[in-house]
Amino acid sequence: MIHYPFGIQIDKTKKEETNKNSFKNRGLSLESLLNEANSYYVNSNKALIYKKPTPIQVVRINKENIITEAYFKSPSTTDYNGIYKGKYIDYEAKETKSKTSFSLNNIKNHQINHLFNVTKHGGISFIIVYFTSLDEIYIYPSSSLTKIIEANKKSISIDEFKANGYKVELTLTPKLDYLKIIDQIYF
Amino acid sequence: MIHYPFGIQIDKTKKEETNKNSFKNRGLSLESLLNEANSYYVNSNKALIYKKPTPIQVVRINKENIITEAYFKSPSTTDYNGIYKGKYIDYEAKETKSKTSFSLNNIKNHQINHLFNVTKHGGISFIIVYFTSLDEIYIYPSSSLTKIIEANKKSISIDEFKANGYKVELTLTPKLDYLKIIDQIYF
Repeated sequence: MIHYPFGIQIDKTKKEETNKNSFKNRGLSLESLLNEANSYYVNSNKALIYKKPTPIQVVRINKENIITEAYFKSPSTTDYNGIYKGKYIDYEAKETKSKTSFSLNNIKNHQINHLFNVTKHGGISFIIVYFTSLDEIYIYPSSSLTKIIEANKKSISIDEFKANGYKVELTLTPKLDYLKIIDQIYF
Repeated sequence: MIHYPFGIQIDKTKKEETNKNSFKNRGLSLESLLNEANSYYVNSNKALIYKKPTPIQVVRINKENIITEAYFKSPSTTDYNGIYKGKYIDYEAKETKSKTSFSLNNIKNHQINHLFNVTKHGGISFIIVYFTSLDEIYIYPSSSLTKIIEANKKSISIDEFKANGYKVELTLTPKLDYLKIIDQIYF
């Protein structure tokens, strides 16, 4: 029995769990990984990136200011945005169970257009996709996404992610240090 | 009787209503003015600036996916952000009925810190305040706000807005063309 930091105890006899480079074994969602990374970046003055709240249409509020009727709305833009090294940064995060491809049905057309617009305005934009069954996370830049859309493709294959995307490996603090990849691509 | 564009008819005998430079007479909120301006900027490819959704904690959802219990949460950052001329832009919008000053109780401490952080990271940040009783709207940059906070002041006087802020005049399209002022201050 080895004592890991943060009180995590891992039984070395279970081989799967000893794989340190596994997001899956830690049971973490992409959203929780990104939130942890973004909090770390804000606290260490590295970047200011926040998740936008889910848009909700409030219909009824009672006397105690509790919302008693409301509806989920479709977001007008993407999930995350902010500033990094003086540059505007904007991205959409998605998970897929597929082992072979990421379907573009998972992203709304106007969100894709928004990502393209960000690039036109001089910002950094991309999608970040977590293939949960493969236990792999990729950053896929808008510049590559443009080609997919122009070719009228409805999905992005895992081979395309391997070829033109950037795999983000699990690290210690933060677990998903994705700005390291952004440095490689854009700086 | 003069026929104005957009079918607005104004009786010249009523002096108040003939004042074209009045936001008040048009019954417009600062939020609706900003939303109109930001839509105009997006549609004309001038900037990508959006209002963040109000953060809501969803507690209960029924079978029809209708939210039946939820609570308003305190926002972690500011109301608006985006990209303009390649620069990250971030601001908080507030209305006040006061004719003499804007109380800083209207803005949370962590929102003020967020504005300061944006400046540190090389972005543009400010507050925009609508004095509804005076019918005047001012942009007040974070660089001036820093001095107010450092001097331990709890409010910003209207004279201070006139001295170190920038008045935004009502125009035709969009009605609140505030990026014109941003050009003056930052570009």
